[in-house]
Amino acid sequence: MDALRQPKRSGAFAALDTMMPVVWILLSAVSGLKAEDGGMEELTTEKEAEESHRQDSVNLLTFILLLTLTILTIWLFKHRRVRFLHETGLAMIYGLLVGVILRYGIPATSYHNKTPPSCSLKEGPVSTLLLNVSGKFFEYTLKGEINSREIHNVEQNDMLRKVTFDPEVFFNILLPPIIFHAGYSLKKRHFFRNLGSIITYAFLGTAISCFVIGNLMYGVVKLMQVVGQLTDKFYYTDCLFFGAIISATDPVTVLAIFNELHADGDLYALLFGESVMNDAVAIVLSSSIVAYQPSGANTHMFDASAFFKSVGVFLGIFSGSFVMGAATGVVTALVTKFTKLHCFPLLETALFFLMSWSTFLLAEACGFTGVVAVLFCGITQAHYTYNNLSAESTIRTKQLFEVLHFLAENFIFSYMGLALFTFQNHIFSPIFIIGAFLAIFIGRAFNIYPLSFLLNLGRRHKIKGNFQHMMMFAGLRGAMAFALAIRDTATYARQMMFTTTLLIVFFTVWVFGGGTTPMLSWLHISFALQEERRQHGKWQYFSVGVDPDQDAGPCGDSFQVLQGDGPQAEGQSKTKQESAWLFRLWYTFDHNYLKPILTHSGPPLTSTLPAYCGPLASCLTSPQAYENHEQLRDHDSDLRNDSDLTFTFGDTAITANGASGGGADAAGGSGWSANGKRSGSTSEEALERELDSREQELLSRGTRLVFPIEDHI
Amino acid sequence: MDALRQPKRSGAFAALDTMMPVVWILLSAVSGLKAEDGGMEELTTEKEAEESHRQDSVNLLTFILLLTLTILTIWLFKHRRVRFLHETGLAMIYGLLVGVILRYGIPATSYHNKTPPSCSLKEGPVSTLLLNVSGKFFEYTLKGEINSREIHNVEQNDMLRKVTFDPEVFFNILLPPIIFHAGYSLKKRHFFRNLGSIITYAFLGTAISCFVIGNLMYGVVKLMQVVGQLTDKFYYTDCLFFGAIISATDPVTVLAIFNELHADGDLYALLFGESVMNDAVAIVLSSSIVAYQPSGANTHMFDASAFFKSVGVFLGIFSGSFVMGAATGVVTALVTKFTKLHCFPLLETALFFLMSWSTFLLAEACGFTGVVAVLFCGITQAHYTYNNLSAESTIRTKQLFEVLHFLAENFIFSYMGLALFTFQNHIFSPIFIIGAFLAIFIGRAFNIYPLSFLLNLGRRHKIKGNFQHMMMFAGLRGAMAFALAIRDTATYARQMMFTTTLLIVFFTVWVFGGGTTPMLSWLHISFALQEERRQHGKWQYFSVGVDPDQDAGPCGDSFQVLQGDGPQAEGQSKTKQESAWLFRLWYTFDHNYLKPILTHSGPPLTSTLPAYCGPLASCLTSPQAYENHEQLRDHDSDLRNDSDLTFTFGDTAITANGASGGGADAAGGSGWSANGKRSGSTSEEALERELDSREQELLSRGTRLVFPIEDHI
Repeated sequence: MDALRQPKRSGAFAALDTMMPVVWILLSAVSGLKAEDGGMEELTTEKEAEESHRQDSVNLLTFILLLTLTILTIWLFKHRRVRFLHETGLAMIYGLLVGVILRYGIPATSYHNKTPPSCSLKEGPVSTLLLNVSGKFFEYTLKGEINSREIHNVEQNDMLRKVTFDPEVFFNILLPPIIFHAGYSLKKRHFFRNLGSIITYAFLGTAISCFVIGNLMYGVVKLMQVVGQLTDKFYYTDCLFFGAIISATDPVTVLAIFNELHADGDLYALLFGESVMNDAVAIVLSSSIVAYQPSGANTHMFDASAFFKSVGVFLGIFSGSFVMGAATGVVTALVTKFTKLHCFPLLETALFFLMSWSTFLLAEACGFTGVVAVLFCGITQAHYTYNNLSAESTIRTKQLFEVLHFLAENFIFSYMGLALFTFQNHIFSPIFIIGAFLAIFIGRAFNIYPLSFLLNLGRRHKIKGNFQHMMMFAGLRGAMAFALAIRDTATYARQMMFTTTLLIVFFTVWVFGGGTTPMLSWLHISFALQEERRQHGKWQYFSVGVDPDQDAGPCGDSFQVLQGDGPQAEGQSKTKQESAWLFRLWYTFDHNYLKPILTHSGPPLTSTLPAYCGPLASCLTSPQAYENHEQLRDHDSDLRNDSDLTFTFGDTAITANGASGGGADAAGGSGWSANGKRSGSTSEEALERELDSREQELLSRGTRLVFPIEDHI
Repeated sequence: MDALRQPKRSGAFAALDTMMPVVWILLSAVSGLKAEDGGMEELTTEKEAEESHRQDSVNLLTFILLLTLTILTIWLFKHRRVRFLHETGLAMIYGLLVGVILRYGIPATSYHNKTPPSCSLKEGPVSTLLLNVSGKFFEYTLKGEINSREIHNVEQNDMLRKVTFDPEVFFNILLPPIIFHAGYSLKKRHFFRNLGSIITYAFLGTAISCFVIGNLMYGVVKLMQVVGQLTDKFYYTDCLFFGAIISATDPVTVLAIFNELHADGDLYALLFGESVMNDAVAIVLSSSIVAYQPSGANTHMFDASAFFKSVGVFLGIFSGSFVMGAATGVVTALVTKFTKLHCFPLLETALFFLMSWSTFLLAEACGFTGVVAVLFCGITQAHYTYNNLSAESTIRTKQLFEVLHFLAENFIFSYMGLALFTFQNHIFSPIFIIGAFLAIFIGRAFNIYPLSFLLNLGRRHKIKGNFQHMMMFAGLRGAMAFALAIRDTATYARQMMFTTTLLIVFFTVWVFGGGTTPMLSWLHISFALQEERRQHGKWQYFSVGVDPDQDAGPCGDSFQVLQGDGPQAEGQSKTKQESAWLFRLWYTFDHNYLKPILTHSGPPLTSTLPAYCGPLASCLTSPQAYENHEQLRDHDSDLRNDSDLTFTFGDTAITANGASGGGADAAGGSGWSANGKRSGSTSEEALERELDSREQELLSRGTRLVFPIEDHI
C-alpha cells in the first residue's frame, strides 16, 4: 500500500507544496530577485527558479485565459439562448480540452532531469531539515512522502504536477466565497417557509444517503474482490466516506437553472435549501467518518464506541461551526447598527468583508469547519446585518460576493475538466463506477421518497409526486463532492473514489443539468421562460447572475434575488398551515427581540421587553424603531385597511434604514409601519404578511426595479 | 558577511516559505486532514502541523482584527472630523501597538524547542532534497540559507517569524490592486493637461533624486567608515539602490488628503500623477541597479559598460511593461466593444477583472514588471474600456477595485507598523538615518526646484513658487518604498536600508501627512473643506473613498473621482497655451482613430480614415458612432451655439453607451454630438471643451449625482 501512495498528497505535509495560483504569483516574482553573493553553486538554482517561475506564470495564465474564454462563450450562449448546456458544463468542457492539450499536446519538457540527491537519517521525517554544505547551512521544509518508484520522476512531470494544484485551495480559497454567497442570498420567504423540510432532507436525508451508498458500495467492493478487480485495500470506512462525499448535491447548477426557468418557488426552495445545507452536512460527516477510524488502525469494521465518538464529533463540529458563524454575523450586525458606518459605504463594505472572512479563520483556529461557519455567517448577515447597511453597501456587498462567487465557481468547474486528464493517479474501475452510479440513484431515492412521505404526514401543503421526482432528478453533484474527493487522494481507495466522483460530476452536470428543462415539462411542473413572461407584460421575476434577456428590458441589476414563483394569493392561504410551532416560536423571538436588538427595524424593545428591562431596552433600541412605531400609531387606522392590499399588490416595502434609505424611503414608511403594527400580534396571518413584505423588500432593495404586477388584481 | 545573512530572505528561495495570508489559510486546513496510515513517526509531525496551523489562523486573525479596528477608528475620526492624523497613519499606529504586544507581551512560546536534525552533502544546495528514512523517501524543498548562529533558533522564534511574512506578498498580492486602482482612477482633465510636467518629474526627477540620494548616502557611508560605525560592506551600488527605493513618493496619502481638501487641481494632478508614475520608475530603476551589479561581483564601483547595460535594462523593462499593459487594455476594449457583453454586467466585470489580472501574469511571464504593466493597463482601461462598459459595470469595477485597494492599502500600512517590532534584523544606525533624512530632502529639492524652473520656461501657466514648496513638502514616502525595501533584506546594507526606510515612511506619513492642511494655509494655496463649500450651496466636489460629510448631503457613491479644483472659466483660458504639440498630436490621433476603433464614442472611422480604408473603417465603426454623427449633422447649427453653454453649465454629458446607458442617455445625446462636431477641427478650444466634457462625463457616470454649479454663471 505504501508503494502506491503518490508523492504529493500524503497527509499533513502537502500544504507547503501548494501549486496554487497565489503561490504561483509569488514564485513569479522571485525571478526578479538576484542572489546577492553570486556564488556559482546558487546560479543554477537561481536559473531554475527563474525558469520555474516563468512556467508558473504561464500555467496560471492558461487558467485565466480559460476562464476568459468561458466567460465569452457563456455570453454567446446567453446571447443565442442556448439552453441545453449550462455554463458550468461549458467550463468543464473547456477544462477537458485544455487538459487533453496539456497531457498529450505538450512534450514533457522538464528543465532538469537529474534525480535529486538524497541523504539518510535514522529518525522519522521532520518538518524542518538542515543541510550542511561545506559549512553553510540551508533550511529545507518537508513537502511530502514520495513513492520510491517515482523518485526519478520527481522533477520530470513538473508541468502536470503544477497544474494539479493543492486540493486545499478548493477548501480555503474557492469554496468559502461560493458558500458565503449561497448563505447571503438565502433570505427569502420560500426558504423559511420550508425550513423544516429542508433541514430534514439536508440532515436526515444526507445521512441516509451516505449510509445507503456506503453499504451498497461495500457490496460492490466485495464483488470486485470476488472478481479480482480490487488490487489494494478498500475498507468499510472508505465506502462510508465515499457515501459522505458523494451525497452532497450542488447548489450552483440547480440554483442557476431553476432561477432562470422560474419553476415553482417551493420546489426551488426545497432543492436550493437542501443543497446548501447538505454541503455543510457532507463536510462535517466526512470528517467525522475520518475521525471514526478506530484508533488501532487495524479494524476498519463497525465499532460502537468509535461510532458514537463519530456522532459526537459530528454534532460538536457542526454546532461549533454554526455558533461561530452566527456569532460573527451578530457582531457585525451590532457594529453596523451602533456606529454610523453606513455613511461611509466603503468602510462598511470593507468591514463586512473582513468580518465574514474572519469567521472562517476563527472557526479554523478553534478547530471547527470554516466553510460551514461561513455558510451560517452568510445567513445571519443576510438576515440582520443586511438591514443595517446603507443602500450602497447592500449593493456593493452583493456584487462583491457575486463576482467572487462567479469566478470561484467557474474556476472549480474548469479545473474539474482539467483534472480528468492532468491528475496522474486516476484509477478507472468500471465495476466501481457503474456501482457508484447505481448507488447514488438508490441513495437519492432513499433520501427523497421516504422522507417526503414522512414530511407529507405533517405538511398540509404536500410535496407532490412530480416534485419528488424532480428532486430526485435534480440531485446534481458538483463542486463540493469534487473538493471533498480531491482533498485526500493518498490511498488506492481514495484515488478510485476521486476518479469516480469526477465522472459522476461530469455526468450529472451535463445530462441532468441539460435535461432540467425537458424534465420539468415532462413532469408537468409549471415554469415560464423569461421571454414568454415578458410577452405577457409581466416583469415579475429576476434573473440569477447572467440573464439572456436583459438587453431588451430595463438592463437592471443582476443580483441573485432568489424569488420564488407563485400566485401569491394562493401561496398565502397555503402557507399558514405550514408554519410549525417551533418556527412560530422562533419567528416571535426573532421579530420581538433579535431584530430590534440587531437592526434598525422591528418594534421598539421598550414595547416587547418586560418593564424592568426598561433602561436596557431603550438603550438598545434604535431611534428609527421609535419612529416606525410612532408612524404606526398615527396611521394605524388606515393602514389596517390598506396593508393587505399593499402586500397583495406587491408594492415596494423598504426598511427605513437610517439616513441612507435612498429614493425608496417614501415607500418604506408604509411598509414598516405595517410591520410595526404586527408587533403585538404574532398571528400567522401577520407572519405571512411579514414574510411577504420581506420578500418584496429584498426585491426592491436588491434590484431597485419597480415592476408592474398587473396580473394580481 | 555570510554570517550576517538572515535565515529567511536569501534570494530566490524565499518564496515557498511564504508566511502569507493565503498560505496560512491553506495550512489551516491541513489540521483537518488525518494521515491515513497512522504510523507513529508521523503522529508527532501531524500534531505539530495542527498546532502550527492553529497558530497561523490566530496570526491571520490578528491582522484581520487589526484591520477591523482600523476601519472602526477611521470611521470615528471621519465622524468627529479629526484631521491631524490620516487613516494610513492610524493603521501604522495600530500596527505598532500590536507589534509591541507580539514582541514583548507574549512569551516566546514555541511548540517544540529541539534543534532540527541536519545532514551533510558535498554538492551545493539543490531545490529538492530527498530524505531516506528506513527505506521511505520524503521530499524536501529548499527554504533558504540559514545563519549558523541562528540554527538553534530556527524553530523558537516561530511566532515572530510568521507574522513577518514574505515580502513578495507585497509585490504580488497587495501592490497590484493599489496600482491598478491608481491607474484606473487617473482619467481626468488636469492629469492630461499636465502630462508633460508629470512625466518630467516622474522620470527625470526620480532619476535625479535617486542619484543625488545615492551619492549623498555614499558620503554618509564613507563617514560612517571613518567613525567606525560601519561593521560590514556597503557598496556604492547599495547606496544607489537606496536612492531608487526611497525616491518613489506615495500616491496613497497625497491623494486622500488633497482630494479631501480640494486644493488646486493642477497641483493635485502634478503630485498625484508624479507619485503614480514614479512608483513604476522606482521599481524599474531599482531592478536595473541590481542588474547593473558588475558581473565580477568584486568591483561595486562605477563601470561604464555596466551602466549602459543598466540603462538598457531600464528602458527595455519599462517599455515592455508599458506595451504589455496597454495591449491588455486594448484587447479588453475590443472585446467589450464587439460583443454585447454589456448586457450581462456580471460577465463583464469578471472579464474585466480577469483581463486586468492577466496583464500582471503576462508581464511576469515575459520577464517584465507586473506592477508597472498593471498601472498602464489601468490607465488604458479607464481611457477606452470604461466607455464600453455598461452603466452597472462601470460602478461595479470601480467599487470592486476600490474595496481591494482599500483593504490592501490598510493592510500594508498596518504591516509597516507591525514590522518595526516584529522584524528581527533591524539595524539602527543613527548616522545613516540622519543622513538619509537629509538626503531625501536634498534629493527632493534637486528634483522639484530645477525641474520646475526648466518646465516654467516652457509652460505659460507657470508652476508657482508656493506650488513648488508644496510639492517639496508633499513628497511622502509610503507603500512602494516599503515594499521595495523589504523585498531583499539579506545583507547588512539592505537591513540598514530597510530600517531607515521604515522610519522615513513613519515620519513622512505622520508629520507631513498631518501637516498638509496647515502647510497649505501657510503657503496661501486655496483649498476649501467640504463643509465650508456646502454652506455656500455648491456641491461640486466629490470625495475620495470615505467622506466625512456625506451623511447630511445626498449619501451618494464614493468613488475616487479625481476632480481638480478651480474656477473653470479661468482654467479654460489658461490651459490652451499649455497643450504641447506632442500632446495635440496624440490627442488628434486618439480622438480620430483610437477612440472610434476601441470604443463606441468618437467620430465614425469612415469620416476620419482615408477613403481607401473604407470597408475596414465601416467594419470597425460601431453603429453608435454613426448615430452620434447623424445627430451631429442634424443639430449642428444650434449645437454650435449651445455647446459652450452646455459645458460651462456643467451639464451631464454621457457616452452613448450601447443599450445600457441607463437613465442618463437623454443627456448623452447632446454631450456626444457636441463631441462629434469637433471631429473635423482639432483646435485647442475644441480639445479643451472635450476635456471638460470628459470630466463632466466622468463625474456624472461615476457618481450619478447631478450637481448644481450656480457659481459659474
